Amino acid sequence: MHWNIPTRDGAYRAAALARQAILTKPTGALGALEDVAVWLADIQQSKQPVAGPVAAMVFASDHPVSRLGVSAYPREVTPMMVINLATGGAAASVLARMNNIPLHVVDVGTEPYPDPQPGPGMHWARAAQAGVVGDLVESDAMDEAALRAAMQAGVDTVDALPAGTRIAIFGEMGIGNTTPASAVSARLMDMTAADMVGPGTGVEGAALEAKRVLVQRALDRAVGTEAPLDVLRRLGGREIAAIVGAMGRAAERGMAILVDGFIVSTAALVAVRHDANIRDYMWFGHRSAEPGHTRILEALNATPLVDAGLRLGEGSGALTALPLVQASVALHNEMATFEQASVPDKAD
Amino acid sequence: MHWNIPTRDGAYRAAALARQAILTKPTGALGALEDVAVWLADIQQSKQPVAGPVAAMVFASDHPVSRLGVSAYPREVTPMMVINLATGGAAASVLARMNNIPLHVVDVGTEPYPDPQPGPGMHWARAAQAGVVGDLVESDAMDEAALRAAMQAGVDTVDALPAGTRIAIFGEMGIGNTTPASAVSARLMDMTAADMVGPGTGVEGAALEAKRVLVQRALDRAVGTEAPLDVLRRLGGREIAAIVGAMGRAAERGMAILVDGFIVSTAALVAVRHDANIRDYMWFGHRSAEPGHTRILEALNATPLVDAGLRLGEGSGALTALPLVQASVALHNEMATFEQASVPDKAD
Repeated sequence: MHWNIPTRDGAYRAAALARQAILTKPTGALGALEDVAVWLADIQQSKQPVAGPVAAMVFASDHPVSRLGVSAYPREVTPMMVINLATGGAAASVLARMNNIPLHVVDVGTEPYPDPQPGPGMHWARAAQAGVVGDLVESDAMDEAALRAAMQAGVDTVDALPAGTRIAIFGEMGIGNTTPASAVSARLMDMTAADMVGPGTGVEGAALEAKRVLVQRALDRAVGTEAPLDVLRRLGGREIAAIVGAMGRAAERGMAILVDGFIVSTAALVAVRHDANIRDYMWFGHRSAEPGHTRILEALNATPLVDAGLRLGEGSGALTALPLVQASVALHNEMATFEQASVPDKAD
Repeated sequence: MHWNIPTRDGAYRAAALARQAILTKPTGALGALEDVAVWLADIQQSKQPVAGPVAAMVFASDHPVSRLGVSAYPREVTPMMVINLATGGAAASVLARMNNIPLHVVDVGTEPYPDPQPGPGMHWARAAQAGVVGDLVESDAMDEAALRAAMQAGVDTVDALPAGTRIAIFGEMGIGNTTPASAVSARLMDMTAADMVGPGTGVEGAALEAKRVLVQRALDRAVGTEAPLDVLRRLGGREIAAIVGAMGRAAERGMAILVDGFIVSTAALVAVRHDANIRDYMWFGHRSAEPGHTRILEALNATPLVDAGLRLGEGSGALTALPLVQASVALHNEMATFEQASVPDKAD
């Protein structure tokens, strides 16, 4: 899958930096909020960056590996949480509603369940599936057909967003999915299972050790697999693949991507290794309490906006950080300059 | 100044914790957002905590010590920034407007300037002044009359808020005020100027060293001063005193206090040392880039919500964090329970 990610004229970035320097504050005193405004001005090629419209998309899938006891929750939770997300009761649903943005819940491969009746502002779709999925340990997570279908579901979801959508937030639901995320990110960063495997929704003790062993077995099976999309196919999962596809399409359409936590950052890592040009379209919403997330953030040279101990997924970290992006843009566009306010600037 | 801070029935805290445990997420997975909801349920003695109405108050004052070259900005910036805050062009003005909350700008002691015409949602007042102020180094920052007038201005500002105000945010403006904040917090924590003095709005090199020397001289002069309000009087400043007074009154009225950065946290430290009961009414909005702030946070056992490198003051850090408080409450009240969503909980 080749991406045509637009390159940009650095003039808007320079203009945004110049404006930050004349606003009524010491330059740099708004920290990351300055950086985010400059980032959006660059992506949007605009002197008046905007923080919306925003769309949130949550992709959901089962994982055969969850049968091997890698999660604190039973596999049946995935489809029930899809319904909860779509009907409006999940954390991401509440945060999307609070932020007045649409939430698109896309099932890319779970056990059957009755079609939910989406709540206000919520959307639900079941994507076409294809191919064969496996448990990472004994067999590949996806064959080529399954990978292609999942990535296409992501592309299609982004393509269905209204023209003019400026910011994309991705989330995921899939009991067991810190296991494939640990495997994919470890492989891409040349790390071991011990480096990357953490508690996820809450495994500990012997179960955590068993999860590590499974991830290491998966990694051992994938030695020599180098191409990012091959790593994704062999060790990942369908919702992660959908997010990779969606990220590529979002960047092609010039959208800014506000990245969520561990799972979505794994997708971001795949996307950046596949095409480094996409990195400039990403800002990282939060630092997850899942320990491996910090390693991915370091590998991507990312400083997240919020560090509040979240480890839920669903896009909840990025949705929590969204108001900081909005604050950044409001400050950039609405603050008075030293000249407008007749305030003397620093002596230097 | 004696405070009558209400004590609370722990039943609401327990009920909030119990509700967090049955919402459709692993317990603890929303990190600090869970803690904030429980905190508000406790303060508000309610099963349905609310994140508003919110009021923001910025207190402003000159500092005689600014004549000694402790700031990168000239002293005249303070009154011009008061006007900028009141007319709507300062960072705190933009953030208050974005959050749709009123901003009260209260001058507790600056050089004269023309009365500003407040912008939409902004309010401005000049408090009655009294007494004598000094430069900390050669003379006390305030005499008793000046301290009393400044603290009363804070009390009066909170008393003028509408009944039912639930959350108070305090900010400050005062060129040079990281100097008194460093001195007050160092004295209360038994630290030296070297421990606490940082760049403020941007002093460095020889100027930073000179600032350290001045703060140490002030500290040496105040050896043996123990009572928190005496430390405040001898080493502080009028806007810091106003915030201490306002915090006490806000807690007496049962308001939650969302604390800003270095200067406001210094006021919080004075308030907590004066009456430890007030600590339960405080949550800390952000970690300032000013190095001394982290020492104060540690002394108050506080984990702030946002760590985005802000170091502006004006209440901008707390205002940036406010949407996280709102998210916390929305999640607590609106998420489905496992039973409502028919989602199986963890096996344990």
